[in-house]
Formats: sequence, structure tokens, C-alpha cells
Amino acid sequence: MCKWNQHRIFSTFVSLRRQQIYSVRRFQTTTTLGKPISIASIQIPMDATEQSLRQSLSEKSSSVEAQGNAVRALKASRAAKPDIDAAIELLNKLKLEKSAVEKELQSTISGSGNGSLNREAFRKAVVNTLERRLFYIPSFKIYSGVAGLFDYGPPGCAIKSNVLSFWRQHFILEENMLEVDCPCVTPEVVLKASGHVDKFTDLMVKDEKTGTCYRADHLLKDYCTEKLEKDLTISADKAAELKDVLAVMEDFSPEQLGAKIKEYGITAPDTKNPLSDPYPFNLMFQTSIGPSGLIPGYMRPETAQGIFVNFKDLYYYNGRKLPFAAAQIGQAFRNEISPRQGLLRVREFTLAEIEHFVDPENKSHPKFPDVAKLEFLMFPREEQMSGQSAKKLCLGEAVATGTVNNETLGYFIGRVYLFLTRLGIDKERLRFRQHLANEMAHYAADCWDAEIESSYGWIECVGIADRSAYDLRAHSDKSGVPLVAEEKFAEPKEVEKLVITPVKKELGLAFKGNQKNVVESLEAMNEEEAMEMKATLESKGEVEFFVCTLKKNVTIKKNMVSISKEKKKEHQRVFTPSVIEPSFGIGRIIYCLYEHCFSTRPSKAGDEQLNVFRFPPLVAPIKCTVFPLVQNQQFEEAAKVISKELASVGISHKIDITGTSIGKRYARTDELGVPFAITVDSETSVTIRERDSKDQIRVSLKEAASVVSSVAEGKMTWQDVWASFPHHSSAALDE
Amino acid sequence: MCKWNQHRIFSTFVSLRRQQIYSVRRFQTTTTLGKPISIASIQIPMDATEQSLRQSLSEKSSSVEAQGNAVRALKASRAAKPDIDAAIELLNKLKLEKSAVEKELQSTISGSGNGSLNREAFRKAVVNTLERRLFYIPSFKIYSGVAGLFDYGPPGCAIKSNVLSFWRQHFILEENMLEVDCPCVTPEVVLKASGHVDKFTDLMVKDEKTGTCYRADHLLKDYCTEKLEKDLTISADKAAELKDVLAVMEDFSPEQLGAKIKEYGITAPDTKNPLSDPYPFNLMFQTSIGPSGLIPGYMRPETAQGIFVNFKDLYYYNGRKLPFAAAQIGQAFRNEISPRQGLLRVREFTLAEIEHFVDPENKSHPKFPDVAKLEFLMFPREEQMSGQSAKKLCLGEAVATGTVNNETLGYFIGRVYLFLTRLGIDKERLRFRQHLANEMAHYAADCWDAEIESSYGWIECVGIADRSAYDLRAHSDKSGVPLVAEEKFAEPKEVEKLVITPVKKELGLAFKGNQKNVVESLEAMNEEEAMEMKATLESKGEVEFFVCTLKKNVTIKKNMVSISKEKKKEHQRVFTPSVIEPSFGIGRIIYCLYEHCFSTRPSKAGDEQLNVFRFPPLVAPIKCTVFPLVQNQQFEEAAKVISKELASVGISHKIDITGTSIGKRYARTDELGVPFAITVDSETSVTIRERDSKDQIRVSLKEAASVVSSVAEGKMTWQDVWASFPHHSSAALDE
Repeated sequence: MCKWNQHRIFSTFVSLRRQQIYSVRRFQTTTTLGKPISIASIQIPMDATEQSLRQSLSEKSSSVEAQGNAVRALKASRAAKPDIDAAIELLNKLKLEKSAVEKELQSTISGSGNGSLNREAFRKAVVNTLERRLFYIPSFKIYSGVAGLFDYGPPGCAIKSNVLSFWRQHFILEENMLEVDCPCVTPEVVLKASGHVDKFTDLMVKDEKTGTCYRADHLLKDYCTEKLEKDLTISADKAAELKDVLAVMEDFSPEQLGAKIKEYGITAPDTKNPLSDPYPFNLMFQTSIGPSGLIPGYMRPETAQGIFVNFKDLYYYNGRKLPFAAAQIGQAFRNEISPRQGLLRVREFTLAEIEHFVDPENKSHPKFPDVAKLEFLMFPREEQMSGQSAKKLCLGEAVATGTVNNETLGYFIGRVYLFLTRLGIDKERLRFRQHLANEMAHYAADCWDAEIESSYGWIECVGIADRSAYDLRAHSDKSGVPLVAEEKFAEPKEVEKLVITPVKKELGLAFKGNQKNVVESLEAMNEEEAMEMKATLESKGEVEFFVCTLKKNVTIKKNMVSISKEKKKEHQRVFTPSVIEPSFGIGRIIYCLYEHCFSTRPSKAGDEQLNVFRFPPLVAPIKCTVFPLVQNQQFEEAAKVISKELASVGISHKIDITGTSIGKRYARTDELGVPFAITVDSETSVTIRERDSKDQIRVSLKEAASVVSSVAEGKMTWQDVWASFPHHSSAALDE
Repeated sequence: MCKWNQHRIFSTFVSLRRQQIYSVRRFQTTTTLGKPISIASIQIPMDATEQSLRQSLSEKSSSVEAQGNAVRALKASRAAKPDIDAAIELLNKLKLEKSAVEKELQSTISGSGNGSLNREAFRKAVVNTLERRLFYIPSFKIYSGVAGLFDYGPPGCAIKSNVLSFWRQHFILEENMLEVDCPCVTPEVVLKASGHVDKFTDLMVKDEKTGTCYRADHLLKDYCTEKLEKDLTISADKAAELKDVLAVMEDFSPEQLGAKIKEYGITAPDTKNPLSDPYPFNLMFQTSIGPSGLIPGYMRPETAQGIFVNFKDLYYYNGRKLPFAAAQIGQAFRNEISPRQGLLRVREFTLAEIEHFVDPENKSHPKFPDVAKLEFLMFPREEQMSGQSAKKLCLGEAVATGTVNNETLGYFIGRVYLFLTRLGIDKERLRFRQHLANEMAHYAADCWDAEIESSYGWIECVGIADRSAYDLRAHSDKSGVPLVAEEKFAEPKEVEKLVITPVKKELGLAFKGNQKNVVESLEAMNEEEAMEMKATLESKGEVEFFVCTLKKNVTIKKNMVSISKEKKKEHQRVFTPSVIEPSFGIGRIIYCLYEHCFSTRPSKAGDEQLNVFRFPPLVAPIKCTVFPLVQNQQFEEAAKVISKELASVGISHKIDITGTSIGKRYARTDELGVPFAITVDSETSVTIRERDSKDQIRVSLKEAASVVSSVAEGKMTWQDVWASFPHHSSAALDE
């Protein structure tokens, strides 16, 4: 089979979504998150106002120029002064008009950029807090860091660990999935089979003098965006052209991209030197396994392949029953050409992937009714193509009407929705977007991305794809090990089987050395292709046939091949399972969670804005702080007792015995997103404060740890607690 | 400073422990687990019997040879037949005696190998079960795998996740450690500073014709071991020599190793081709960061460096207070030359490392009393050197008497003991072995390894080292960023400071171009060195001084340097903290746990041996199975209800609705180490069976999940449960 030539497996994506400010660029690889995804390219809406203003500005410019010429002509012909004066007056009037249009256009353009300015300011506030409080740290900072590598500092690390624990509980445990843990170092043969060695690339250009590398599409995008935003003199046509380029550039071939870069005279941003032609750069980190240097290997670009190569063992482990799901959490690596977008585009990241193997003839799911009633924002293909926006749909209905391809895919969409919203993702800024036809690989049955809106636009955080039998077949073909499932029939069934018998003698005479290629291609035909050939041969005696390994058509005559259907008795059906793959970019989910949970509120004195991360207790890095109200030994001892109890029930907490004012201590912990604070203000009882309401209750010292642990672990809500304990007011001491 | 030349940081280890069958080979690198560790090299005890038997065999051989000559001489001289017959009779008698000694020697040698045969049979049984039940899978098996890479299959993965959760609870949470999570991809500069780029090597030889690579020490070891075990003709002296080589070879230089390989005529094992000279091979997987190919990087060989480079931020995060600990769990990578020893020596593995930063002048620990009363097997340096064995010591005493260097180190030894034994490691097969002087890096204050006995011998699973200020200083020096802590004085203190002032004019005249090197070396002297120089200069007028950057001695005269102590007032003390580093090889701990928990017991019928993993509930991969006793819809529904309840309280479980006999189902789950089984045998109540005792109780259907969850989470013991519920006996149905 010659899949790579016949089909564009790594098809690219043209944004057709006119409603969106940000479009999403992606490649299709063997898994959705298996590639550099979602570089937000600003796609400025070319609305009617801007269009007419550009038109009008260009007309005004022409008029000014024409009138200027007229004035000069009058002067040259020594016309009468009143005539000249009148002409000059008209010129000035026209100049004023042009300037007015210019101003209006400027404000229209920057008006549409205001949102982006606000978004940037918001992002800056979030990121400053994150970096200051060590949610993350640029890796190897004391050595000036490395682009695209970040550490999780203590609170970030705790959040990551909470997110992964919940993922394990929500998916692996509740669905009885088979978890595996495979190495990152992967020999070349595996990634050759999956297609990554040949196709996992971005287009790169080099500064011809210094050798500095750039992503070719980034340079073209930057050029177009800047031109559109800052150059008022370009014509409406030119502006339309640039916008068109922005919309379609992701479908450009290396040659098309190179031609545009040449046409626009784009040079290296740092040096203005000329650039090389674009060429593909493989994004995998390469290494060598063993001491000989002869076994090439790569750091895995996704975790999925480790599951596929184990299919056979896992199927046996599951008692040879379908469906079942395997899952893996682990590091993945992509050697980005020039990482941008901070924590969203990094060179090493944690993926959590599920491969749910299912009989392609039965994709129903017994637990689908559990999620069928959920309603949330969905963005089907149709709505994207017709310029509508995402809309609230009932999941059960979306599956029933065929908008979502099958129940199992629908079930996972529902489970992903529950997972993300329980973590604290705002459901109004979460949507499930269906892939357009040209975004999907040819083998995929249907794909939906969970996209979360952030200051960078809509970010793909989870890909949920029905990838059919592609991956298992690829590894079957390459390894020679059948990765299949069987269905035993209760009693033997009579089935019709396609039989293709190439007549080697005739083919040999006709194609000589190419005979083998032709035979293989004939044998690889599917039923539809074969029956079509049979019909044509019977009606016309010959047929043109494309042999992909020869990259050309050959003429097949009736005597060269026999095609028939034969009846056979079969005791079982052997088939390659389909796989439905939800794939989670954990770091992206966490970053979006930061943005969704971040807010500011004025301090008590009203003189400053205080930062708060409103993390749900489930993900909060520290569940509780323990403060002695004032520095004294009894309170400190009591605080230590509570701390010990909290540790023993597994509640992460922090004890703060500095003498700082209690208001400042609350503010410090709000900024870390700590949901509860226990203040020891007596030797027998303490107060517990809830972060978001700032409400306080009083409980006995003995109960403190257990109350906090119940509410932090979701066994009780704060409302329950608020209803059961005396309220406490300490506004004076408080913030 | 020129540390690398002056000291052997990567010193190697000579086994002096005569009591042990296995000795441990290791290099010292920046962290204990930061290197290929513990290749068990069989060190056969050269006891008196063997020695005298070899001696006697050699004498008997000489006698046989002499008598043979005598017979031949008699025959040649045509001596009288009775004389010849008598001589032949003596020859035969001598031959019989020789043969008897040979037999005895053979049995002595193989007798000492019997233990190892049993160990191998035991290991085979464990490993077969592990592989058959997918605790682990050779990675990329369908592509014939890659040596030294293994996947954790579902039960292995669950155990790993349980071990890491408990590690987080036991260390990070209970000690309020700062967890970080740094990338695996590491730029060269970081590993240059840590010493890995230059020194993280093993000695390798190549087959001169095929290029196949071998670890040089392995070949020499195999040669000596085989010779000793199989060649009875070698003399007692030769045998002693070979044993000596086995004991000291780990201290050999490349030249010494090469010379021995030549002397013994060792060739490539597969081809018998000659071998190259040994040369160092760096064990890090190398890669390149970014598209230019100009930024060399490595996959980290340990996680510790990520913590050290973040020291400054973490110190600030902790409110600039010492002591504090940071911790990291993550993958580490070592490109072993030829991995052996299955799951113990792999090319990618999970490390969990703690760096506890402490004031070098105060290594007390407030929680030391919590562990001071613990008693367990310790193996101090003294006992090893004097040929004794490990003995039970009280930890408090070991610290009080100075056997363990300080309280903080002692505290971690105690915490590691608790961690390992709670996981299920047998405390009789766990010992803490102190490093010998020549095993430790020069900067280390004290090191203890938690060693666990397995079929491979005593395996180092946790290294606990007081590494003083070495790592922070190395990164300070390389990055230019001070990694220090401050202690503010309540009131200014008067201190004496060493002042070294090289007289550059005189030094320039004397050393010309080398002046800079001499100045730097003078300034780098510590107080002791400087005061000694001062004394010598005053008494003799000049002194020989080794300049490490010049690799030679120079003569320093009195007028070239002024050395004095000056009194200064200081408001704070600035110092580089010491670091105490417990470093856990998670995969090794898990493998040893497998061996310690594995046992067999006869089936009910007594016709076969059944495998059982007696994992404590804490680590068991699946806590509970749920079986309907017979296949019927009511029981299946009840089983599903229980399953749902178990999932909601986070208890991993498995439902088995196959019609297999209940005994077989128990046996299947025993082999996975599932501690509890719920059997649904009515619509209102169920039985719960405990794996190790095979005892069963009867509980109502409603209580089933909560009873199992209480006992699986350690809130109740099985004894509690046994005392509270009616017992159930179903021997007939049971196994």
C-alpha cells in the first residue's frame, strides 16, 4: 500500500472561520496533539467599514495628487492668481478630507486591536504573578535559560500533580483503563512507521549570512500583519490580498511560501539579510541509542505510539475483549524552530493520552446515557463553514443527528467537558470545535477539539479523534505482527470474499521489471476499487490504473487480472480495531486554568489591587494555610498540632508564623490560590476563612483539620460548613 | 579553582567486604544515583578449603606426571615386568587420588554457587510472572525491542503510581518540601558545571573488526569468574590472583584495565576478534536544542541539577530561611554500553530526589527524636573494613556516637527506612551501608546507601549523601550567580578574615605569561593552606607551590605574596548551604518489592504451585476484585453497583464476570497481588476474602465498598474487620 502518495495525511488547515479573531494552525499527524498546534495567527476581520475607508483613502489620495498636479500646471502656465488660489484652496480642502479619512481608518484598525491590547495587559498581569510566585520558572535561568523550556515551581508542580491525579481518577479509574508507562527514548523504526520521521516537520528559512533560523510561516504572517496594521497607504485591494494570504498561507507548499517571501521582499528580522528558500525541518529531538552510534533514536513527540505497539499484549490482558482503553501520561518533546507564546508552545511537555479500541462496526457506548443530557458550546463543521459561531448543543442530540459521528466519540466529548469544568475551566470559554474536512487526515472518521479561550485566543487543549484503524495498521505493516481482534461467531457464517488474482505471466510480459509493483498495487485494491475495475474490464477490455510505487498510470488488460467474489464459511471475524483518541495537553490546560481563575480585587484600604487565583479546592496547590494570629508560643504550638493533623490526612498546607499582619498574610495566600485559611486566635478554637467569599467561621481546635479536609476533598461544600458553624467577623483585624 | 585535577571526584570503589557474595561497583559522580551503580560482581570467597584443595590438586598432578615419566623410563629401559607393574599400580593409585581431589574441588566451587543457582531459579519464577501478567513489557517488543528499555504494563504502572503517591505523601507533604518539575532536555553548560560532560563515563572496548562495543570491566570480570568456576587446573596462586583482580579491578585506570585484558588474552565474546584499548564512553544521550544544531544538549542523567540551578528562587520562595528541602520526581537517562540485570540496569528510569539545604554549621533536625528510637540493620564503614557483617543499631545511638555524621542525615536515614518498610520491603533484607572513604567524593561529609537484598545480591536503591556545598558552588562558579544564604546577626560581630594579596609586580617578573595562573591559585588557597604557606615563607623564605592550571610546582618567594588575618565587623554571615541528598531509584525499589512480595503456595488440589504477590494494600496495583459467584443477571447488576461505588471512592478494582471457577478467579488475582476479593453470592450480601489468610467475611451489599475502602486505605486492619463481621466458610466452592 502506498498511502503517503495517494493521500495527504499531513494535510493543513485553512481557517474559514470568519467570526474568530484568532485562527488556529495545525498539521495533521498521527495524533492531534502530535504536532505543533494552534499558533494563533491574528486574522483581522476585513469588515465593510475598513474596506470602504481604504477605498475612500485611496480615492482621496488620487484626488490630492491630481489637484496637486493641477495647481502645478496652473502655476507653470502662469494662470491668473484667483484661479491658482481657488485651485490651492480646493487642494487644501482635499488634503483635509484625506487626513480625516486617514484618521478614521487608523482608529478603525487600532479599534479592532484594542481587545488584543486588553488581552495583553491581562496576560501580563497573570504571567507576572505566576513568575513571581514560582508557579513556573524559565528553565536554567542562571545560565540565561533556553527558549521553550520551563520548570514548574512549587505551586505549579502541586497543581500539575492535582490535575494528573484527577485525570487518573476521572478517566483511568472510573473507566477501568489500562495504564502503561513507556520510555521517551524511541528507536527510529517506530516513528518511521507512524510517519513522524518523514512528515513531522515545519518549514524553516535561514538568514543566508548568519545562519539564524526562522519559521517561514511566522515571517510571512508577521509581515502581513504589520503591513495591515501600520501601513495606511496600501490599497484596499492590497489589504484584501494580504488578508487572503493570512487565511490560506497554512496550506502553502514550500515553493509557494518561498515565492511569497521573495515577492514581498521579506528579509531576516534581526539583520535584514536575505533568506534561504524554505525547507522542512524535522521537529523531533534526535539522539543515538547504545554506544555504537548505529541505532538512531528520537525523544518521542507523543505518547500514543507506546500504546499502539503494545496493542496485542493489552488485548490479551483484557481477556481478548473489545472495547477497552489504554492510557498513558508522560513527557513528549518537540524541537520547535522558534518557540513563541510562552507556556503554550514549549519544547518539552506532559501529555495524557487515551487510546480507546473499539469494533469499527459497533461504536456504541454503554455509558453514553450518563452524558447525553449535557449541554455546552459546540462548533460543528457546518457552522464554521457558514460563518456562524459556536452554539449550545445537547450532546445526546448531537450524536443522534449525526453531528458527532458516534456514541463513543460523543461519550469522550462529554467526559472531557466534565473533566475540564470540574478543574475550574469556565464553561463559557470552552467549546468543542469539529475539524473541517481538510483538517482531518483521510483515515479519520471525525475529530473534535476542546478549545479554551485565553488571552492568546482559542487554544486547542484536548484533541478527541476517531482515527479508525490507521495506527494499528501502520505498525502491523511495518513490524509484520498482526495487531487485530477477533469476533468468534456463535455459528459459522457464510461470507462473500473479494479475490484478486493477478495473472503474473501476462503482467510480466507487459511490465517486465515493474511487474512486482503492479501486482502489489492490484492486490492492495479495496472492494470498491476492485469491483469498479472488474466492471470496466468487462465493458471496455482495459483500464488505466495508477501504481503509486511507480508514480504513474499503466494500462491493465482483461487477461492480466481476475477479480471475483467467492462465498466462504467463516468461524470468526478478524479485524483491525478502530481507535478513538482523546489526547490532553496538560500544560496548556493548566495555563488556561491560570487565566480563568485569575482576578484582582481592591485591598481593604482601596489603595491597591490584590491578585487572587480562584482555584477550586480540587486543583489548589495548597489547600490551607495555618496562621497563629499573633506570635506567641501557645498559638504556634496549636498551629503545629493542626499542621501535623492536616499532613496525616494528606491535605497540603503551609504554616506561616511570621509576625506580618493577618491581612497581608491572607493576601499572600490568595495570590497562591489557597482556598482556606485557619487562624489560631485562642488555645481552644480557631477561625476558618474561605478565600472567595472571605467569610469566616469558628470551629474548635480539634475539628479544624477535619473540617478543612472535608471541604477541600469535596465531601462538603463551603455552604454546608457555613450553615453548620458559628460565623466569625473580624473585619478590624482582617484585610 | 581547579578541583578536577587536585582530587579524584569520580573515585571508584574497591570492595573490601569479605562477607558479601556480591560486591557493588560504582563511580562517584555529583549524586550517588547519578551514575551506573551496583553492577553486582560475583566475589567468590577464597576459603581455606578451596585454597588447600587447589594446592593438593596441583601436587597430585605433579605426582601423576612424575610417576608417568617413571613408568615410561622403566619401559624404555626394558625393566623387569614386576617393577613396571608396580610402577603402573602406583600411577593408577595417584590418578585415583587426583581424581578424588578434583571432584572435591569441583563440588566446593559449585557448592558456593548453589545459592546463586537457587537465586536464579527464584528470579526466573518472579520475572516470568511479571512478564506474563504485564507488570512490565520489553519496550517496542513488536520491533524486537531495545536493550535496557522497558514499559510498565497496567499492574506495574499502578504500583509505580502508588509508590510515587506515597513518596509525595511521606516526604513532600509531611516535610513541607518544595516540589519542582524541570525538563529532561538540558543544555550542555549545566552538565559541564556538574561534571557530567567530562566525567560521566564507563570504559569501553570495541571488537576491532566488527566494531561491536563492550564494557571493558564486564569482559575482565566474566573472564576471571569463568576461569575460577570452570578451570580446575589453575594453581592456587593463579586463583588468588584472579580473585584479587575481581576485588580491585573497579579501581583500574584505562591503561591497567587494557593491560589485564591483553595479559589474559581476552577477545570479543561473540567473534573472538582482538579488542581495542579501553576508552571512556560518555553515558549521556546527546541531542541538539533548536534548529541551528549549535546548542548541544543532553537528556538529564539525574534530576538533581534542576533543583540546584533553582536554588536562589527557592530560597526566596521559602522566605530566605534555612533549612528547607526541594524535591523532584522525573525521568533520567543513561545510555548504558550493554545493559544487563533486567529491570535493575536500564537506559531510562524514574528518579525521586530530595535536596535538603542546611546551614553547614547547624545540621541538627527538630524532628530527629521522631526517628531516634528506630532500630534496623546498619553496616558502618568500620564493620565493612574489619570483615564483620551488618548489625542492628539504634539510629539515635548511631548519630550520638558519630557513626552517622549528623542529625539531618540520620533523620533521612530513618525516614527512608520507614518509607521502604511501609511499602513492603522486608526489613531483614534491608540495610543501610555507609560508603567507604574511597567511595565518597572528597567533598562529601558522609554517605549511606539503602541496600535491598534481591536475587542479584544487595542492590543500592536509595543513596543518602551529605554532599556539603559542592553542587551549589559548582553552579555558582560556572554561572557567576551567587547561590548563597545569609544569616543576619542580632548585633554586628567581629571576625577574623584571611587576606591574601599577591604582589603582581614580583610575580610578573618571575612567571611572565604564567603570572595570571599563579595569582589565581594563590588567591584560591583556603585558610589552612595559606597559613601554612605564611609560616614556611617566614621560616624558609620560599616555598614550592603546585599551580593546578599549570600542572606543575613553582617557587614562591617571600616578596611575592602577603598573607594576613584582619579583623572586621560583620552584620551577617554569607555562606553556601550544605545539601543532604536522598536519591531514590524508583524502578529498583519496585523490582526489589516484587521479589520480596513474591511467593508460591500449593493449590487446593495440591497439584500445582500458585504464585502470590503479597503486596500491602498501599501499593497493590488493584485493591479489590468483584466477582459474581455464578453468571446471572442479578449478581452481575449487584457487582456493577459495587464497582461504581468503589470507583467513586477512588479504589482501583477489577470486575470479573467470566464463568470461570471462583478458585481460578482467586488464583488469577492472587498472582496480581490483589489483596481483597468481593464475591457476590446473593442479592443482599457478599463475601470479602483476604488474599494472604484466605479468610472470608460476610457483609451486606451496601457496606461492601466502604469496608474494602477502609481496609485498603489503612483506616482499618483486616484484624479489625475480621473481628467485626460474621465469618464465611466456602471451602467447597473455594480453591
